[in-house]
Amino acid sequence: MIILGIDPGYALTGFGVIESRGPRLTLLEYGTISTRAGVPFPERLLRIDQELGSLLARHAPEVAAIEELFFYRNVTTAIGAAQGRGAAVVAMARAGIPVVEYTPMQVKQAVTGYGKADKVQVQQMVRLLLAMSEPPKPDDAADALAIAICHAHVSGGIPRQGR
Amino acid sequence: MIILGIDPGYALTGFGVIESRGPRLTLLEYGTISTRAGVPFPERLLRIDQELGSLLARHAPEVAAIEELFFYRNVTTAIGAAQGRGAAVVAMARAGIPVVEYTPMQVKQAVTGYGKADKVQVQQMVRLLLAMSEPPKPDDAADALAIAICHAHVSGGIPRQGR
Repeated sequence: MIILGIDPGYALTGFGVIESRGPRLTLLEYGTISTRAGVPFPERLLRIDQELGSLLARHAPEVAAIEELFFYRNVTTAIGAAQGRGAAVVAMARAGIPVVEYTPMQVKQAVTGYGKADKVQVQQMVRLLLAMSEPPKPDDAADALAIAICHAHVSGGIPRQGR
Repeated sequence: MIILGIDPGYALTGFGVIESRGPRLTLLEYGTISTRAGVPFPERLLRIDQELGSLLARHAPEVAAIEELFFYRNVTTAIGAAQGRGAAVVAMARAGIPVVEYTPMQVKQAVTGYGKADKVQVQQMVRLLLAMSEPPKPDDAADALAIAICHAHVSGGIPRQGR
Protein backbone atom coordinates (compact mmCIF):
# COMPACT_ATOMS: atom_id res chain seq x y z
CA MET A 1 0.00 0.00 0.00
CA ILE A 2 1.35 3.40 -0.99
CA ILE A 3 0.55 6.11 1.57
CA LEU A 4 0.87 9.86 1.14
CA GLY A 5 1.36 11.69 4.44
CA ILE A 6 0.57 15.40 4.52
CA ASP A 7 1.54 17.94 7.16
CA PRO A 8 -0.84 20.70 6.12
CA GLY A 9 0.14 24.34 6.07
CA TYR A 10 0.07 27.42 4.00
CA ALA A 11 3.60 28.77 3.50
CA LEU A 12 4.94 25.22 3.86
CA THR A 13 3.11 21.92 3.30
CA GLY A 14 5.10 18.81 4.20
CA PHE A 15 4.64 15.59 2.27
CA GLY A 16 5.99 12.08 2.57
CA VAL A 17 5.27 9.05 0.41
CA ILE A 18 5.97 5.56 1.71
CA GLU A 19 5.14 2.03 0.67
CA SER A 20 4.00 -0.41 3.32
CA ARG A 21 4.20 -4.14 2.57
CA GLY A 22 3.50 -6.26 5.60
CA PRO A 23 5.99 -5.13 8.24
CA ARG A 24 8.25 -3.46 5.70
CA LEU A 25 8.20 0.28 5.01
CA THR A 26 9.95 1.85 2.04
CA LEU A 27 10.58 5.54 1.60
CA LEU A 28 9.54 6.75 -1.86
CA GLU A 29 9.73 10.56 -1.67
CA TYR A 30 9.48 13.37 0.82
CA GLY A 31 9.80 17.13 0.89
CA THR A 32 7.84 20.33 1.17
CA ILE A 33 5.68 22.48 -1.04
CA SER A 34 6.56 26.06 -0.30
CA THR A 35 4.55 29.06 -1.39
CA ARG A 36 6.18 32.46 -1.38
CA ALA A 37 4.96 35.38 0.70
CA GLY A 38 3.94 38.19 -1.60
CA VAL A 39 2.36 35.88 -4.16
CA PRO A 40 -1.44 36.42 -4.22
CA PHE A 41 -3.24 34.13 -1.84
CA PRO A 42 -5.30 32.17 -4.43
CA GLU A 43 -2.11 31.40 -6.38
CA ARG A 44 -0.48 30.06 -3.24
CA LEU A 45 -3.38 27.69 -2.63
CA LEU A 46 -3.38 26.71 -6.30
CA ARG A 47 0.29 25.80 -6.05
CA ILE A 48 -0.46 23.45 -3.14
CA ASP A 49 -3.24 21.89 -5.21
CA GLN A 50 -1.03 21.46 -8.28
CA GLU A 51 2.01 20.09 -6.46
CA LEU A 52 -0.15 17.56 -4.64
CA GLY A 53 -1.65 16.66 -8.01
CA SER A 54 1.85 15.95 -9.35
CA LEU A 55 2.59 13.76 -6.33
CA LEU A 56 -0.59 11.76 -6.97
CA ALA A 57 0.41 11.33 -10.60
CA ARG A 58 3.93 10.15 -9.67
CA HIS A 59 3.02 7.72 -6.91
CA ALA A 60 -0.69 6.86 -7.22
CA PRO A 61 -1.14 6.48 -3.44
CA GLU A 62 -4.10 4.44 -2.23
CA VAL A 63 -4.70 6.73 0.71
CA ALA A 64 -3.69 10.10 2.09
CA ALA A 65 -3.11 10.62 5.80
CA ILE A 66 -3.26 14.19 7.09
CA GLU A 67 -2.77 15.78 10.47
CA GLU A 68 -5.63 17.50 12.22
CA LEU A 69 -5.10 21.11 13.20
CA PHE A 70 -5.11 21.78 16.91
CA PHE A 71 -4.40 24.27 19.58
CA TYR A 72 -3.30 27.28 17.65
CA ARG A 73 -2.76 30.19 19.99
CA ASN A 74 -2.74 32.60 17.06
CA VAL A 75 -6.05 32.59 15.19
CA THR A 76 -4.52 34.29 12.13
CA THR A 77 -1.94 31.52 11.82
CA ALA A 78 -4.66 28.92 12.33
CA ILE A 79 -6.80 30.45 9.58
CA GLY A 80 -3.89 30.42 7.12
CA ALA A 81 -2.92 26.83 7.91
CA ALA A 82 -6.55 25.71 7.77
CA GLN A 83 -7.07 27.18 4.32
CA GLY A 84 -3.98 25.34 3.11
CA ARG A 85 -5.35 22.19 4.69
CA GLY A 86 -8.68 22.72 2.94
CA ALA A 87 -6.89 23.00 -0.40
CA ALA A 88 -4.95 19.79 0.29
CA VAL A 89 -8.02 17.81 1.37
CA VAL A 90 -10.06 18.88 -1.63
CA ALA A 91 -7.17 17.97 -3.96
CA MET A 92 -7.36 14.41 -2.58
CA ALA A 93 -11.14 14.28 -2.65
CA ARG A 94 -11.23 15.44 -6.28
CA ALA A 95 -8.82 12.66 -7.21
CA GLY A 96 -10.91 10.10 -5.32
CA ILE A 97 -8.14 9.39 -2.78
CA PRO A 98 -9.50 8.51 0.66
CA VAL A 99 -8.27 10.92 3.34
CA VAL A 100 -7.64 9.68 6.87
CA GLU A 101 -7.08 12.17 9.69
CA TYR A 102 -4.88 11.76 12.75
CA THR A 103 -4.22 13.98 15.73
CA PRO A 104 -0.60 14.88 16.54
CA MET A 105 -0.86 12.66 19.63
CA GLN A 106 -2.02 9.67 17.56
CA VAL A 107 0.93 10.18 15.22
CA LYS A 108 3.45 10.32 18.07
CA GLN A 109 1.86 7.32 19.73
CA ALA A 110 1.93 5.25 16.55
CA VAL A 111 5.48 6.14 15.57
CA THR A 112 7.25 6.09 18.94
CA GLY A 113 4.78 4.29 21.20
CA TYR A 114 4.50 7.44 23.31
CA GLY A 115 1.88 10.13 22.64
CA LYS A 116 3.96 12.90 24.20
CA ALA A 117 7.21 12.10 22.39
CA ASP A 118 9.21 15.16 21.37
CA LYS A 119 10.15 16.16 17.84
CA VAL A 120 13.62 14.60 18.01
CA GLN A 121 12.29 11.24 19.23
CA VAL A 122 9.74 11.18 16.41
CA GLN A 123 12.35 12.06 13.79
CA GLN A 124 14.74 9.38 15.06
CA MET A 125 12.02 6.75 14.82
CA VAL A 126 11.10 7.92 11.30
CA ARG A 127 14.77 7.63 10.34
CA LEU A 128 15.02 4.10 11.79
CA LEU A 129 11.73 2.82 10.35
CA LEU A 130 12.53 4.12 6.87
CA ALA A 131 16.23 3.13 7.00
CA MET A 132 17.39 6.68 6.34
CA SER A 133 20.99 7.65 7.02
CA GLU A 134 19.95 10.99 8.54
CA PRO A 135 16.74 12.19 10.18
CA PRO A 136 14.47 13.74 7.55
CA LYS A 137 14.55 17.53 7.17
CA PRO A 138 12.85 19.96 7.36
CA ASP A 139 10.42 19.38 10.23
CA ASP A 140 7.36 19.63 7.98
CA ALA A 141 8.61 16.81 5.76
CA ALA A 142 9.56 14.71 8.82
CA ASP A 143 6.08 15.26 10.25
CA ALA A 144 4.48 14.20 6.97
CA LEU A 145 6.51 10.97 6.96
CA ALA A 146 5.48 10.35 10.58
CA ILE A 147 1.82 10.78 9.59
CA ALA A 148 2.24 8.28 6.74
CA ILE A 149 3.93 5.80 9.10
CA CYS A 150 1.11 6.33 11.60
CA HIS A 151 -1.39 5.27 8.97
CA ALA A 152 0.70 2.22 8.06
CA HIS A 153 0.65 1.16 11.73
CA VAL A 154 -2.99 1.90 12.34
CA SER A 155 -4.12 0.16 9.17
CA GLY A 156 -2.30 -2.93 10.35
CA GLY A 157 0.69 -2.98 8.05
CA ILE A 158 3.32 -3.21 10.76
CA PRO A 159 3.31 -3.89 14.48
CA ARG A 160 3.18 -0.82 16.71
CA GLN A 161 6.30 0.20 18.55
CA GLY A 162 6.30 -0.49 22.27
CA ARG A 163 7.05 2.40 24.53
CA MET B 1 -19.43 42.23 -15.50
CA ILE B 2 -20.74 39.11 -13.78
CA ILE B 3 -19.57 38.85 -10.16
CA LEU B 4 -19.76 35.81 -7.89
CA GLY B 5 -19.85 36.73 -4.20
CA ILE B 6 -18.91 34.04 -1.70
CA ASP B 7 -19.51 34.02 2.04
CA PRO B 8 -17.12 31.21 2.93
CA GLY B 9 -17.95 28.55 5.45
CA TYR B 10 -17.96 24.88 6.07
CA ALA B 11 -21.45 23.70 6.97
CA LEU B 12 -22.91 26.58 4.94
CA THR B 13 -21.29 28.53 2.11
CA GLY B 14 -23.30 31.49 0.85
CA PHE B 15 -23.17 32.52 -2.79
CA GLY B 16 -24.63 35.34 -4.82
CA VAL B 17 -24.25 36.05 -8.53
CA ILE B 18 -24.97 39.52 -9.89
CA GLU B 19 -24.40 41.36 -13.13
CA SER B 20 -23.10 44.91 -12.97
CA ARG B 21 -23.54 47.15 -16.04
CA GLY B 22 -22.63 50.72 -15.35
CA PRO B 23 -24.80 51.79 -12.41
CA ARG B 24 -27.22 48.92 -12.90
CA LEU B 25 -27.10 45.72 -10.86
CA THR B 26 -29.05 42.61 -11.77
CA LEU B 27 -29.56 39.62 -9.52
CA LEU B 28 -28.82 36.34 -11.31
CA GLU B 29 -28.81 33.70 -8.57
CA TYR B 30 -28.22 33.33 -4.86
CA GLY B 31 -28.36 30.64 -2.24
CA THR B 32 -26.26 28.42 -0.03
CA ILE B 33 -24.24 25.26 -0.40
CA SER B 34 -24.89 23.19 2.67
CA THR B 35 -22.88 20.17 3.73
CA ARG B 36 -24.37 17.78 6.20
CA ALA B 37 -22.83 17.02 9.57
CA GLY B 38 -21.93 13.36 9.71
CA VAL B 39 -20.72 13.24 6.12
CA PRO B 40 -16.93 12.64 6.05
CA PHE B 41 -14.99 15.88 6.05
CA PRO B 42 -13.30 15.48 2.63
CA GLU B 43 -16.67 14.83 1.00
CA ARG B 44 -18.04 18.01 2.54
CA LEU B 45 -15.19 20.04 1.07
CA LEU B 46 -15.60 18.27 -2.26
CA ARG B 47 -19.25 19.24 -2.31
CA ILE B 48 -18.32 22.92 -1.89
CA ASP B 49 -15.82 22.52 -4.73
CA GLN B 50 -18.34 20.84 -7.02
CA GLU B 51 -21.23 23.20 -6.33
CA LEU B 52 -19.01 26.21 -6.95
CA GLY B 53 -17.88 24.51 -10.17
CA SER B 54 -21.53 24.24 -11.26
CA LEU B 55 -22.06 27.94 -10.50
CA LEU B 56 -19.04 28.84 -12.63
CA ALA B 57 -20.41 26.72 -15.47
CA ARG B 58 -23.86 28.34 -15.23
CA HIS B 59 -22.80 31.98 -14.98
CA ALA B 60 -19.17 32.27 -16.17
CA PRO B 61 -18.37 35.10 -13.72
CA GLU B 62 -15.38 37.28 -14.52
CA VAL B 63 -14.40 37.60 -10.89
CA ALA B 64 -15.13 36.11 -7.49
CA ALA B 65 -15.32 38.28 -4.39
CA ILE B 66 -14.90 36.53 -1.05
CA GLU B 67 -14.99 37.69 2.53
CA GLU B 68 -11.89 37.53 4.68
CA LEU B 69 -12.18 35.57 7.90
CA PHE B 70 -11.78 37.61 11.04
CA PHE B 71 -12.14 37.65 14.76
CA TYR B 72 -13.28 34.16 15.51
CA ARG B 73 -13.47 33.63 19.23
CA ASN B 74 -13.65 29.90 18.77
CA VAL B 75 -10.56 28.50 17.08
CA THR B 76 -12.31 25.23 16.18
CA THR B 77 -15.02 27.15 14.32
CA ALA B 78 -12.37 29.28 12.63
CA ILE B 79 -10.46 26.19 11.46
CA GLY B 80 -13.60 24.67 9.96
CA ALA B 81 -14.62 27.86 8.18
CA ALA B 82 -11.08 28.45 6.95
CA GLN B 83 -10.85 25.00 5.40
CA GLY B 84 -14.12 25.65 3.58
CA ARG B 85 -12.73 28.97 2.44
CA GLY B 86 -9.55 27.27 1.19
CA ALA B 87 -11.65 24.85 -0.85
CA ALA B 88 -13.65 27.75 -2.34
CA VAL B 89 -10.58 29.82 -3.21
CA VAL B 90 -8.80 26.90 -4.85
CA ALA B 91 -11.94 26.10 -6.88
CA MET B 92 -11.77 29.63 -8.32
CA ALA B 93 -8.00 29.54 -8.85
CA ARG B 94 -8.23 26.23 -10.71
CA ALA B 95 -10.83 27.72 -13.02
CA GLY B 96 -8.68 30.79 -13.60
CA ILE B 97 -11.22 33.14 -11.97
CA PRO B 98 -9.55 36.09 -10.20
CA VAL B 99 -10.41 36.19 -6.49
CA VAL B 100 -10.74 39.53 -4.70
CA GLU B 101 -10.92 39.65 -0.92
CA TYR B 102 -12.83 42.10 1.25
CA THR B 103 -13.11 42.54 4.98
CA PRO B 104 -16.57 42.57 6.56
CA MET B 105 -16.11 46.26 7.26
CA GLN B 106 -15.28 47.02 3.61
CA VAL B 107 -18.43 45.16 2.55
CA LYS B 108 -20.65 47.09 4.97
CA GLN B 109 -19.03 50.37 3.97
CA ALA B 110 -19.49 49.70 0.26
CA VAL B 111 -23.08 48.51 0.52
CA THR B 112 -24.52 50.92 3.10
CA GLY B 113 -21.91 53.69 3.27
CA TYR B 114 -21.30 52.82 6.93
CA GLY B 115 -18.64 50.27 8.01
CA LYS B 116 -20.46 49.40 11.22
CA ALA B 117 -23.89 48.86 9.69
CA ASP B 118 -25.85 46.01 11.23
CA LYS B 119 -27.10 42.91 9.45
CA VAL B 120 -30.60 44.29 8.88
CA GLN B 121 -29.29 47.52 7.33
CA VAL B 122 -27.04 45.55 4.98
CA GLN B 123 -29.86 43.22 3.96
CA GLN B 124 -32.23 46.12 3.30
CA MET B 125 -29.66 47.79 1.05
CA VAL B 126 -29.04 44.51 -0.79
CA ARG B 127 -32.78 44.19 -1.32
CA LEU B 128 -33.05 47.77 -2.64
CA LEU B 129 -29.97 47.60 -4.89
CA LEU B 130 -31.05 44.31 -6.45
CA ALA B 131 -34.74 45.25 -6.65
CA MET B 132 -35.83 42.24 -4.60
CA SER B 133 -39.29 42.11 -3.10
CA GLU B 134 -37.98 40.66 0.17
CA PRO B 135 -34.56 40.82 1.87
CA PRO B 136 -32.51 37.80 0.77
CA LYS B 137 -32.46 34.78 3.08
CA PRO B 138 -30.62 33.08 4.70
CA ASP B 139 -27.97 35.39 6.15
CA ASP B 140 -25.14 33.57 4.37
CA ALA B 141 -26.72 34.15 0.96
CA ALA B 142 -27.44 37.81 1.85
CA ASP B 143 -23.82 38.25 2.91
CA ALA B 144 -22.59 36.73 -0.35
CA LEU B 145 -24.76 39.17 -2.35
CA ALA B 146 -23.40 42.05 -0.25
CA ILE B 147 -19.84 40.94 -1.05
CA ALA B 148 -20.63 40.82 -4.77
CA ILE B 149 -22.20 44.31 -4.56
CA CYS B 150 -19.13 45.52 -2.67
CA HIS B 151 -16.95 44.42 -5.56
CA ALA B 152 -19.25 46.10 -8.08
CA HIS B 153 -18.86 49.37 -6.15
CA VAL B 154 -15.14 49.11 -5.57
CA SER B 155 -14.43 48.17 -9.17
CA GLY B 156 -16.28 51.32 -10.22
CA GLY B 157 -19.47 49.91 -11.65
CA ILE B 158 -21.88 51.96 -9.56
CA PRO B 159 -21.59 54.98 -7.30
CA ARG B 160 -21.13 54.26 -3.62
CA GLN B 161 -24.04 54.85 -1.29
CA GLY B 162 -23.73 57.92 0.90
CA ARG B 163 -24.28 57.34 4.59
